[in-house]
Amino acid sequence: MNILKTKPKNDGFYMPAEFAPHEGCIMIWPERGDSWQYGGFAAREAFVEVATAISKSEQVTMCVSYEQYDTARRMLPSQVRVVEMSSNDAWARDYAPTFLVNQEGVLRGVDWYFNAWGGLVDGLYFPWDKDNQMAKKLCDLYNVDVYDASDFVLEGGSIHVDGEGTCIVTEACLLSAGRNPDLSKEEIEEKLKDYLGVEKVIWLKSGIYQDETNEHVDNICAFVAPGEVVLAWCEDENDPQYEMSKNCYDILSKETDAKGRPFTIHKLPLPTPIKITEEECKGLLYMDGEPTRTPGERLAASYINFYIANKSVVMPGFGDKMDEVAKKKLEALFPDREVVQIPARNILIGGGNIHCITQQIPKLHK
Amino acid sequence: MNILKTKPKNDGFYMPAEFAPHEGCIMIWPERGDSWQYGGFAAREAFVEVATAISKSEQVTMCVSYEQYDTARRMLPSQVRVVEMSSNDAWARDYAPTFLVNQEGVLRGVDWYFNAWGGLVDGLYFPWDKDNQMAKKLCDLYNVDVYDASDFVLEGGSIHVDGEGTCIVTEACLLSAGRNPDLSKEEIEEKLKDYLGVEKVIWLKSGIYQDETNEHVDNICAFVAPGEVVLAWCEDENDPQYEMSKNCYDILSKETDAKGRPFTIHKLPLPTPIKITEEECKGLLYMDGEPTRTPGERLAASYINFYIANKSVVMPGFGDKMDEVAKKKLEALFPDREVVQIPARNILIGGGNIHCITQQIPKLHK
Repeated sequence: MNILKTKPKNDGFYMPAEFAPHEGCIMIWPERGDSWQYGGFAAREAFVEVATAISKSEQVTMCVSYEQYDTARRMLPSQVRVVEMSSNDAWARDYAPTFLVNQEGVLRGVDWYFNAWGGLVDGLYFPWDKDNQMAKKLCDLYNVDVYDASDFVLEGGSIHVDGEGTCIVTEACLLSAGRNPDLSKEEIEEKLKDYLGVEKVIWLKSGIYQDETNEHVDNICAFVAPGEVVLAWCEDENDPQYEMSKNCYDILSKETDAKGRPFTIHKLPLPTPIKITEEECKGLLYMDGEPTRTPGERLAASYINFYIANKSVVMPGFGDKMDEVAKKKLEALFPDREVVQIPARNILIGGGNIHCITQQIPKLHK
Repeated sequence: MNILKTKPKNDGFYMPAEFAPHEGCIMIWPERGDSWQYGGFAAREAFVEVATAISKSEQVTMCVSYEQYDTARRMLPSQVRVVEMSSNDAWARDYAPTFLVNQEGVLRGVDWYFNAWGGLVDGLYFPWDKDNQMAKKLCDLYNVDVYDASDFVLEGGSIHVDGEGTCIVTEACLLSAGRNPDLSKEEIEEKLKDYLGVEKVIWLKSGIYQDETNEHVDNICAFVAPGEVVLAWCEDENDPQYEMSKNCYDILSKETDAKGRPFTIHKLPLPTPIKITEEECKGLLYMDGEPTRTPGERLAASYINFYIANKSVVMPGFGDKMDEVAKKKLEALFPDREVVQIPARNILIGGGNIHCITQQIPKLHK
């Protein structure tokens, strides 16, 4: 593995869309007791279900601590590869590499700096050293060269691309005080263009209400195809989410993508607001200095937080009346893929969902 | 990865010879302070030289602890892959998987039980749990199924095969009290036949004098080609090694291999006896209950402890007058490969040499 100091865009590299074919998918085993109930015991079954569903159409690699290798190996199906790799938590989307390709079919990774969603300003845990080291180590594991973007704070969940020159982000996240406070919006946009190989960045204002990632785009809006997005939608005008989603809709309605196309915007309903229970809070560890979940707190639940695998779309279910409505919507939007809905309340409690715990590796188009 | 309970021989799998083409090579980064001087600092340069030499003709994967990933990555050339994997020490030969192939080009591994060369009887350290787990984890990493041979104690350095049905071992090692004391010689032979896919086992009596592995075969004798071996040879009749080597010679002279061929035996000189110095002993940590090196102790130095890579033979040098003689001998025996001699005194002090710290992965003949 070579560590590259050049800019991917200058080298002809770009990030393909998630709906383009994959070589595989990276996940990380949940274990951290202040993120996951009962030291990960509640979440791991959901992680196994997600890995199993994805592994039906692409190679899944599960990274796991030394201590839990045997457990992960035994719980996961044989087609999932289990490799030892230290981490602070289990958010592959946010700190596994962002993978790029070029026209010759070469694969490379980007190693952004990860600071637990806000570092010492409003980050969610400390330290984050093991997480931050993973992108480089995963590129090494896959034998691909890595771009050093360690002077720029970014998580994979805060960007979505169409693979044809367009990137969508939220201002709430990318302009937050805990990430790159010394860079202007224009400078941040340049970084995205340079390292994702895109020509145009579309800035939504906000994401999902109460989303502790400072409102990652991957919880509110996703590409279905070039020029076509799906947006988390709230019908209740009294819900704070209503204005947030409507504002995204308005921005997207007036925008065009990098190729000059206007967007087709599909609305995906949100579940009925989901609140953490007293019983659920009892299953969490506490760490002084970290944000703490309190009973009755609303969680940032959204059906947008799905993963597009080669032959399926793996989406969360919350045991809510909207589960089936959202599933049918996605089935209509992805007619060539099976939509698999996985009970994901125990992932949601950790602070994210299926998209947050997965990272695709683009297929080499050689 | 599937964990298989069947016997490789019945499934059509066998271990190819080391001189057959390789897919790659596995090594482990040295770190343990009671094995390696100055907490591994003296040995790691030699390990880097070995990995660099091998990586010129096959993919080398270096396993390293979480703590030393960045160090290994920085010291090793970019073509060497570095992956995190916990271990107790750095002997890839002895506890990386023994790899097998079948006629269809499928690769599988064998996971023997490893007990640090003798367990609680005369093992060299405790515990050995991380080492013992590596074979399975490496098969997982390489996405190959693994044969569970965990009811049988064996190290990869205690066997040599010709890939055509013959295996050579030493009685001193395989019949030692610390390995499989409840199995008869015949039962051990059956295990070797079943798991290595061989038809004939040749039993040498002993290996190299003072070899703390209970005299692994890979320090005294190696296959150069089918029907052709190279044997560590001692000219000094007053040296205890003289009778040990002569006895091996006599056995091999009278034996035939699995195909009925008599052996051509090439004698490879040993270096002048090498003793650890007081200065060198000062660089080691001590652990109560473990064997301890004492100044003046003779080390089990042997030029036989080489690795056959795709385009080179990587052999130890000791700064001894015999280095050049041994190198020329091996050059004559391997005319199609470059013989690379690496200063290996700092590996020797750890208790083995270049063959002991490497494990080949056979090339898939698809």
